[in-house]
Amino acid sequence: MQKKFIVIAILLLCLGGASAFAQESIESLGFSLDVVWLFLGAILVFIMQAGFALVETGLTRAKNAGNITMKNVMDFCFGAIVYWMIGWGFMYGKDALGGLIGTDQFFNGPMELTIDSGNFYKSWFFQVVFAATAATIVSGAMAERTQFKSYLIYTCFISALIYPISGHWVWGGGWLAERGFHDFAGSTVVHSVGGWAALMGALVLGPRIGKYVKNADGKVSIKAFPGHNIPYAALGVLLLFFGWFGFNGASTGIATVGEGGIWSGLAIARVSVTTCLAAAAGAIGSLIFSWLWFKKPDVSMTLNGLLAGLVGITAPCAVVSPGAAVAIGLIAGVLVVLSVEFIDKVLKVDDPVGAVSVHGVCGVFGTLAVGIWGNVDGAAVGLLHGGGFTQIGIQLTGIVAVGAWALITSLILFLAIKAIFGLRVSPKDELMGLDLSEHKSEAYTGFQIFSNM
Amino acid sequence: MQKKFIVIAILLLCLGGASAFAQESIESLGFSLDVVWLFLGAILVFIMQAGFALVETGLTRAKNAGNITMKNVMDFCFGAIVYWMIGWGFMYGKDALGGLIGTDQFFNGPMELTIDSGNFYKSWFFQVVFAATAATIVSGAMAERTQFKSYLIYTCFISALIYPISGHWVWGGGWLAERGFHDFAGSTVVHSVGGWAALMGALVLGPRIGKYVKNADGKVSIKAFPGHNIPYAALGVLLLFFGWFGFNGASTGIATVGEGGIWSGLAIARVSVTTCLAAAAGAIGSLIFSWLWFKKPDVSMTLNGLLAGLVGITAPCAVVSPGAAVAIGLIAGVLVVLSVEFIDKVLKVDDPVGAVSVHGVCGVFGTLAVGIWGNVDGAAVGLLHGGGFTQIGIQLTGIVAVGAWALITSLILFLAIKAIFGLRVSPKDELMGLDLSEHKSEAYTGFQIFSNM
Amino acid sequence: MQKKFIVIAILLLCLGGASAFAQESIESLGFSLDVVWLFLGAILVFIMQAGFALVETGLTRAKNAGNITMKNVMDFCFGAIVYWMIGWGFMYGKDALGGLIGTDQFFNGPMELTIDSGNFYKSWFFQVVFAATAATIVSGAMAERTQFKSYLIYTCFISALIYPISGHWVWGGGWLAERGFHDFAGSTVVHSVGGWAALMGALVLGPRIGKYVKNADGKVSIKAFPGHNIPYAALGVLLLFFGWFGFNGASTGIATVGEGGIWSGLAIARVSVTTCLAAAAGAIGSLIFSWLWFKKPDVSMTLNGLLAGLVGITAPCAVVSPGAAVAIGLIAGVLVVLSVEFIDKVLKVDDPVGAVSVHGVCGVFGTLAVGIWGNVDGAAVGLLHGGGFTQIGIQLTGIVAVGAWALITSLILFLAIKAIFGLRVSPKDELMGLDLSEHKSEAYTGFQIFSNM
Repeated sequence: MQKKFIVIAILLLCLGGASAFAQESIESLGFSLDVVWLFLGAILVFIMQAGFALVETGLTRAKNAGNITMKNVMDFCFGAIVYWMIGWGFMYGKDALGGLIGTDQFFNGPMELTIDSGNFYKSWFFQVVFAATAATIVSGAMAERTQFKSYLIYTCFISALIYPISGHWVWGGGWLAERGFHDFAGSTVVHSVGGWAALMGALVLGPRIGKYVKNADGKVSIKAFPGHNIPYAALGVLLLFFGWFGFNGASTGIATVGEGGIWSGLAIARVSVTTCLAAAAGAIGSLIFSWLWFKKPDVSMTLNGLLAGLVGITAPCAVVSPGAAVAIGLIAGVLVVLSVEFIDKVLKVDDPVGAVSVHGVCGVFGTLAVGIWGNVDGAAVGLLHGGGFTQIGIQLTGIVAVGAWALITSLILFLAIKAIFGLRVSPKDELMGLDLSEHKSEAYTGFQIFSNM
Repeated sequence: MQKKFIVIAILLLCLGGASAFAQESIESLGFSLDVVWLFLGAILVFIMQAGFALVETGLTRAKNAGNITMKNVMDFCFGAIVYWMIGWGFMYGKDALGGLIGTDQFFNGPMELTIDSGNFYKSWFFQVVFAATAATIVSGAMAERTQFKSYLIYTCFISALIYPISGHWVWGGGWLAERGFHDFAGSTVVHSVGGWAALMGALVLGPRIGKYVKNADGKVSIKAFPGHNIPYAALGVLLLFFGWFGFNGASTGIATVGEGGIWSGLAIARVSVTTCLAAAAGAIGSLIFSWLWFKKPDVSMTLNGLLAGLVGITAPCAVVSPGAAVAIGLIAGVLVVLSVEFIDKVLKVDDPVGAVSVHGVCGVFGTLAVGIWGNVDGAAVGLLHGGGFTQIGIQLTGIVAVGAWALITSLILFLAIKAIFGLRVSPKDELMGLDLSEHKSEAYTGFQIFSNM
Repeated sequence: MQKKFIVIAILLLCLGGASAFAQESIESLGFSLDVVWLFLGAILVFIMQAGFALVETGLTRAKNAGNITMKNVMDFCFGAIVYWMIGWGFMYGKDALGGLIGTDQFFNGPMELTIDSGNFYKSWFFQVVFAATAATIVSGAMAERTQFKSYLIYTCFISALIYPISGHWVWGGGWLAERGFHDFAGSTVVHSVGGWAALMGALVLGPRIGKYVKNADGKVSIKAFPGHNIPYAALGVLLLFFGWFGFNGASTGIATVGEGGIWSGLAIARVSVTTCLAAAAGAIGSLIFSWLWFKKPDVSMTLNGLLAGLVGITAPCAVVSPGAAVAIGLIAGVLVVLSVEFIDKVLKVDDPVGAVSVHGVCGVFGTLAVGIWGNVDGAAVGLLHGGGFTQIGIQLTGIVAVGAWALITSLILFLAIKAIFGLRVSPKDELMGLDLSEHKSEAYTGFQIFSNM
C-alpha cells in the first residue's frame, strides 16, 4: 500500500512539475506573441511616415520636394528622441493632478531585462510611432513656406508636450479614460491633435504667395497649386492604408487573451475588416461626390477620401459592424470634400494637402461615430442601436477638451516661434523654392522643371 | 489511508484544473497566432496593390500615370466593398449545385465575436486581398485607352462574380477541390483568372493608337512604347516580390498544427525558400534568354521574368523542393519572354505591361508544375518523381475549366460594357492622355514632358 | 482500496496524456511562433533591397537610373541562387579547419519536412537576405561606371564565398565566435564586409569622369554630382529604417524562450528601442554637424547620418541601454560626415553614395561600441561600465580579421574581373549613361533631362 502511494506521489510530482513548466511556457509564449504583435503593429505605423512624406511631396510643387521629405524624416527623428526623454513620461508616467499628467519614467531604459522593465520596452516602440504620426500630420498644412529650423522646434514641442499630455488623458489612464471616453486607435488622440495643430500652423503662417489674390474689382481669386507627382501621392496613400492596419489592429495592445477573458485575436480580425471597408468606402464616397460636384473623378480628392475613411474608422474600428464601417467611410469621404472646399474657399486658409480636413474634421467625426454605431464591451452605446445620447456626450467632452488643448497650445507655440525665431521664409526664398533656399540643393537635378508659381 | 486519498484527490483536481486551463490557453494562443499570421499575410498581399500600381505606371507613358494609379487604387476599393457584399458568399458560402457556387454569408458581419463568427473575420481580410489581386492584374493590359468609369464597372463584376465563383470550385470546397486539383496559393485561381480577363480586355479594346501601323507595302510595323519610369517599375516588382512571400506563405491558412498533425511552421518555412528561389531564377532566366536573343540585358523583360517565376511557383510552392523551384523559375522566365513576343509580334494583341504572359501563361505553367515536380501530402504525384500523368490530368482539368470560365465571362462582360457604356476613350482623348481627358489634371505638373506618341 | 487505486491510476493516465499533449502543443506553437518571427524579420530585411535601390538611384544621375535598379534587383537574384548552392554550406555547414569554413549542406533542400530539416528551411530565408545586404552595399560605391556583366560576376563571388566564409567565423560557430566576439546583427559580419568590398570596387574602378579634374595650376578641383531624385533617396532611407527593425530585431533568431531561459521577447523589445533611437540620433548628429560645418542642413548627409546610426547600433543593439544607443547614434552621425569628406576630399576615392563611410567605417565603430557600452549576457564588458579593454580587444580582433579578409579577397576579385572581363565601361558609354549604353533603353522616356556631366 505504501509503495503504491509512493508511486502515485512521484507520478503526481512529475505531473505537477510538467504542469508548472507548461504554465510558465504558456506565459512566456504569450509574452513573446504579444511582443511580436506589437512589433508588427509598430513597424506598420512606422512606415506611415513614408506614406505621409510621399503624399505631401506628391501633392506640392517640385521646388520644395527635398525640403518636405527632410521635414518628414526629421520630425520622426527629433520626435523619437524627445518622446523618449520627456514625452513618454508625461503620457504613461505615474498619474498626477487627477488624471492630467504623468510624472515619471523620463529618460527611461532599465539595463536589466525583467517582465516589468520589458513592458516599457515592449510598449515604447509602438507608442513612439503614434506620437510621430501626430507630429507629421502638421507638416502637410505648413508645406512650401515654413522655415526648416522653426519646423524642427515645433516638432519637439508637439512630441514632448502637446501630444503626450492629452494622450495621457485618454490612453494613460487619465480623466477622460475614467469617464468612458472611447477612442480605440486615436481619431482624437492622434489625428485630431495633429489636425488642429495643422490648422493653427497654417493660420499663423498665412497662405502661400499667389494662393489668394485680390483682383482689381475687390474679389479674391483662388489659385490651385497642383501637386508635382501623383504616383508619389498614390503610393503614399497605399503605404498609409497598409500601415493603418497596424495602427488600428495592434491598438488591441495584445494578441493573446486579455482582461475578462477576451480573445484579442477576435478583435484584431474584426478591426482588419472594418478598417479595410471604411477606407474603401471613404475613397468611393469622395470619388462619387466629387465626380457629381466637379464633373470629374478627382484624383487628389479621392485619395484624401480614402484617408478620411481611415481616420473616421480609427476610433470606432473595434466596436462597430462591417456595415457600420461602410457607412462611416462613405460619410467621411463626403465630409472631407466639403471640408476641403470650405476651408479653402470660405475660410481661405491655405492647407496644401488637406491635412486639417482629413485628420481634424474626420477625426472628430470618427470619435462621434463611436456614439452613433458603437457597441462597447457588449453594451450597445450607439445612438442607432438605442444607446441614447450618453456616449455621444462623453465623446463630445473628449473632442472638445482635446481639441481645445491642441488648438490653444499649438497656437501659443507657433506664435512664440514666430516671435522668437521667425516661422516663415522670405518671399524671395518661397518663390525660389525651399530646396534651394533652405538646403542649397535641388530635388531633381537634371530635370527641366517649370517653376509653377 | 482515507486522508492520503483525500490529499491525492485534491492534488489531482488542482492538476486537472491547471491542465484544463493550460488546454484553453494553448487553444487561444493558437487562435491568436493564426490570426497574427493571416494578418501578416494579408497586409503583405495588400501592399502588392502598390506593386502593381508602380509596375503599370512605370511601364506606360507619363500622360496616363495619374489615371493608372487611380484605377489601381479604386479597383481595390470597389472590389473590397462588392467582395464583402456578394463575392465572399459566392466563394465561401454554403455549397450548392454540386460544388458550383456558394449561397450564403452575403453582407456578412456578426456583431458578437465568438470563435465561429471570428473565423469569418479572420479569413475575410486575407481573402479580399486575393480577390483584389485578380482584379488589378487586368488594369495593366487595358492601360492607356480604357474609360475610367467602364473600368470601375468591370472591376465590380470580377470581384463579385467571376473570381469568387471559380474560386469556390478550388478553395471553397467545390468540384475541383474534390477531384484533387492542387493550387496552393493561386497560379490558376488568382493569376490565370486575372490573366485571361486581361487578354479579353485587351482584345475587346484593341491596340493603342500607333501601336500596329500598316505601312504602304502592306506590312505592319510594330511600335514599342517605352515606360516612363523604370525605377517605379523596379520598386513595384520588389514590392510584389515582398508581398508574394505573404501570398504564398500565408496560404497555409494557419501557423499552428493543422489537420493530420502537420506543423504548418514547417510548410511556411519551405514556401519562403521555394518562393525566393523561383523568383530569383525567373529573373535570371529572362535576363539570360533576352540577353542572348536581343543582345542586351533587357530591363523590363527581366523584371517580368522575376514576376513570371513568382507566378510559376504560386501553385506548387508547398509541394516542391528548392531544386525544382529553381527549375520552375528558370522555365517561367524563358516562357514569359517567348509569350510576350508571341502575343505582341504574332497575335498582335496590345498588352502594355505583359500581364497576359506573366499571369495567364505562367499561371498555367505553374499549375502544371504541380503535376511535374509535385509531392502532395507525402505522395510523389509529379511526373518526374514517377507519379505518372494522373495529377497532370487533374491539373489540366482545372486549368481548362477555370480558363474557359474566366475567358467566356470576361468576354461577355467587356462586350456588354462596350455596348452599354463604351469601353474605350476617344482617339483625341487617348492622344491627349487619360490624365487630362479623364481626370482634368496632370500627374507631373511643372515637368517638361514630351508626348511620346 | 484497490478500486480507489484504479480510479486514481486512470485519472493520472488521463492527466499524463493531457500533459504530454500540452507539452507537444506548446513545443509546436513555439516552433510556429519562431517561424513567423523569422519570416517577419526576413521580409523586412528583404525590403531593404528596395531601400538600397532607391537610395542609390536617387543619389546618382538620371542617365544611370535603370542600370542601378537592375543591379540592385539582380544582385539579390544571383546572390540568392549561389547562396543556396554554395554560400549557405560555407557559412553554416559542418565546421572544418578549426573554425575557418563550413563544409556541407550545399544545394540543400530535403523533401521530407521534419523538425530537423525544417530548421534549414526556417533559417535559410532569413540568412539569404543578410547575404544579399552585404552584396548590394557595394553597388552604390561602384555606381555610374561599372559594366553590368562584371557586376554580376562580382555579386556571385561575394554571396558564394567572401561573405559566407567570414560569416562562418562569427555566426557559423567559427573561431571568432569561440573567442567571444559579439556582433549581434552584423555591423562587421554584414556591413563592414560590404563596405570594404565597396572600397576596393571604387578603388579598382577609379573615379567617374569629371569627378577629380587637375587644373592648369596643378590643383585638383573636385566636382559633386548631385543625385537626380531626393524623394527616392528619402523613401529609400525610410524603407531601410523600416527593414532594419527586422534586421536587428529578428537577429534574436527566436521569439520564444531561448537557452538559459532567456525570454527572447524581452530582447526583441529592447532591440526595437535601441535601433529606433540610434537611427534618430544618427540623423540628428549628421544634420547638426553638417549644418555647423557647411552652413546648411544638408539633405543627403542627414539621410546618410540616419543610416550611419543604424549601422552603428547593429552590433550592440541587444547589449546597450537606450541612453547608450543615443550616444552611439550621435557619434556615428558625426563620424559619417567626417568620413565622407575624408574619402572624397583627402583620399579622392569616388564613392557616389558614401557606402564605404556608412557601412565600412560605421560598421567598425558599431562593433567597437560593444566593447565601450556593452553588457553581454549580464556581464558589463563595456569600457564605460568598468569592463576594461578585454572586450574591445576581442572586438578589434574581429574587425581586423574580417576587414582584412574582405579587403584582400575583394581586391583580388575586382582585379581578376578587370583583367579577364573588364570592369569599367568605356568613357563614351559612361558619358552617354549606362541605361542607353548597357541596356539600350532610358529610365525616363518622355522627360526632358539635361545630361549633367
